[in-house]
Amino acid sequence: MAIEYIDDSAGIADVTGFTTAAIACDIREKGTDRLDLALVFSATLCTAAGVFTQNDVKAAPVRVCREILDLGKPVHGFIANSGNANACTGEQGLVDARDMAQRAATVMGKPHHSFLVCSTGRIGRAMPMARILEGIDQLVDHLSLAPSESRRAAEAILTSDTRPKTCTARFTWQGRQVTVAAMAKGAGMIQPNMATMLAFLCTDAAAPAALLHEVLLAANQQTFNAITVDGDMSTNDTVLLLANGASGVDLATAPAEARALFAAAVERVCAGLAEKIVGDGEKISKVVEILVRGAREEAAAEKIARAIGNSLLVKSSWYGEDPNWGRVLDAAGYARTGLIEEKVDMFYDDIPVLAHGIAQNQHLAQWKLAVKKARFRIVLDLHLGPGAYRLLASDLTEGYVNYNKSE
Amino acid sequence: MAIEYIDDSAGIADVTGFTTAAIACDIREKGTDRLDLALVFSATLCTAAGVFTQNDVKAAPVRVCREILDLGKPVHGFIANSGNANACTGEQGLVDARDMAQRAATVMGKPHHSFLVCSTGRIGRAMPMARILEGIDQLVDHLSLAPSESRRAAEAILTSDTRPKTCTARFTWQGRQVTVAAMAKGAGMIQPNMATMLAFLCTDAAAPAALLHEVLLAANQQTFNAITVDGDMSTNDTVLLLANGASGVDLATAPAEARALFAAAVERVCAGLAEKIVGDGEKISKVVEILVRGAREEAAAEKIARAIGNSLLVKSSWYGEDPNWGRVLDAAGYARTGLIEEKVDMFYDDIPVLAHGIAQNQHLAQWKLAVKKARFRIVLDLHLGPGAYRLLASDLTEGYVNYNKSE
Repeated sequence: MAIEYIDDSAGIADVTGFTTAAIACDIREKGTDRLDLALVFSATLCTAAGVFTQNDVKAAPVRVCREILDLGKPVHGFIANSGNANACTGEQGLVDARDMAQRAATVMGKPHHSFLVCSTGRIGRAMPMARILEGIDQLVDHLSLAPSESRRAAEAILTSDTRPKTCTARFTWQGRQVTVAAMAKGAGMIQPNMATMLAFLCTDAAAPAALLHEVLLAANQQTFNAITVDGDMSTNDTVLLLANGASGVDLATAPAEARALFAAAVERVCAGLAEKIVGDGEKISKVVEILVRGAREEAAAEKIARAIGNSLLVKSSWYGEDPNWGRVLDAAGYARTGLIEEKVDMFYDDIPVLAHGIAQNQHLAQWKLAVKKARFRIVLDLHLGPGAYRLLASDLTEGYVNYNKSE
Repeated sequence: MAIEYIDDSAGIADVTGFTTAAIACDIREKGTDRLDLALVFSATLCTAAGVFTQNDVKAAPVRVCREILDLGKPVHGFIANSGNANACTGEQGLVDARDMAQRAATVMGKPHHSFLVCSTGRIGRAMPMARILEGIDQLVDHLSLAPSESRRAAEAILTSDTRPKTCTARFTWQGRQVTVAAMAKGAGMIQPNMATMLAFLCTDAAAPAALLHEVLLAANQQTFNAITVDGDMSTNDTVLLLANGASGVDLATAPAEARALFAAAVERVCAGLAEKIVGDGEKISKVVEILVRGAREEAAAEKIARAIGNSLLVKSSWYGEDPNWGRVLDAAGYARTGLIEEKVDMFYDDIPVLAHGIAQNQHLAQWKLAVKKARFRIVLDLHLGPGAYRLLASDLTEGYVNYNKSE
């Protein structure tokens, strides 16, 4: 039984029973006709689960989603906007987020059922609610099963992303096809736990909310929580998983093997989106995979990987394509896990850089070739124990600083 | 009894009994005549103390200094170079660091006494020992009490710094003047605990090594450990304090009041140098003082201050002179200390930004003026308890990234 993976798929339209709609309603208030409002709807009620930012400062829509999901309520879909994060907006922000969800439910003819709501964009600015509510009213006319509308929805949630991010995974269980498809946005404030990111997964499996939550948490840990662009964690990070059961495969009663396939499909989709988010980080030029192994425990390996992946000096040297292993080892050292310099092996891709802490300078020409690639790997083996961690990181460019000088 | 403080002083020459020398011996091996080797010497043996990087990866001279100081040995001075950090250089690095210290002792006619040794510069490269040893032999001819030579020594330890960093503090105790004077280098890899920095303090007080250590630790905590440029911690960070007793004031027998004056003078000098280090951070355009108060405890206030001071998005917005309080609050939130958004007050200098979490937009024009200044202050009051912390941070510029692309 294999998982079939489709990169840059049509997104949510790949899943039976989900319709999408997207329009432009100028939430940025800049007079442009950029798509900025998306609706995803299932006529059948969905079980749902979410994982959210661990920031002490949580945007209003994050709080509203958690209220709904904590009560275990089923949902008919979600409304999502870009251009305004509805974060740090006080009581009014909560009122606005609830109004968005309620208006979506009402126009879809489900006034007594729940919709989830997500926002991304500028922090600390009141939502232009008149425009948004009018936009929601218009969305209903655009609802469609068409892949083209699903792609427009994937565009509507973007902020500084340069391209939409979609993917799909499928497997067959006892003759029935189960699909997990998703769209996401990333770009800035990208550091795990979670990133400034929204990711929406839909599936036609049937599953209790608790099972969805367990599967999503596990997938999230290995994927969205293992990427970094700039080390900043947003107020709005949200990953949602909605299941409408249209495939006829019910994971509540299916054997463990079916649940394992489902978990693998969800993780595959999350991994695909996580990779896309790092690869489209704000003004980045490179993706670097950091693999730390041989640590005393996983937590130590993670600390080292994050110290390297978030070091301004390391990231600047990646941008400059300088095989500066001294900065990498320096960052590993200030993670303060008790590494022993004399035991450390390091590699750029498969090329030895350090052997027991000693530079293998005879490979300098090959190091330079490795770090010139748009994607390369740094492996650190500490030779202290079984702990390992893998982090996807981007470089830091002058473009990033220039882009983020003002908003 | 007041402390007299002299900014941009002559440096170590201000202290009775210390002579200095500096020369160029092309440790960078680039054929330039940039000053890169400095010697500080006291004919009287000095008690000494040091605080060092907490990085797991410690440069060879750091290890050699610790060996000497842990044994409580008195010293006649120290030798310091820029251009090569002697870090990640294995056994040979240790041999080289010891050889440098021993050569300095020998040429100064004190072959059986200790010298301390410090290096800063590129990591992972063998020291050009032939040049260095020859340079040490030549240094003896330059030894001088003159302020001009002391200023040259302050230049010789610089790397990417744009200017030498010196200051002096003085007080009088029972008719006798006690002086603490110092020089430092900073610039990149600047994050507390400690920074890529070397700081050398000399005093003509007499004091047991243990007392020096206690005073230096306390001063360091409030000064060098409370600054950040890029969040990177170096392998070489070192602060040394040498006391030759030439003032005739012996702190071992003096009353507590004299020791308090001495501690204040040491802290004043460290604070002066710390401020200079941030203000001369690599390609920075601004210094921002972050004051977090009202936290449940000091550690929580420190976490928040560091999250703000190391946030790429916050630092980029400072560079852009954008009063983006949303990013500041976002960073405060991801420090995950349990702050309550609805209680947070924020100020740029004295201008209200948030009152109980609500933006005070009527002051927008004043915010913009505040963040345009070369130095301004951000105050966060969490209203949760007595914990406070102050951090000096710099902005992040395109110039920093460009400068650090390659070395």
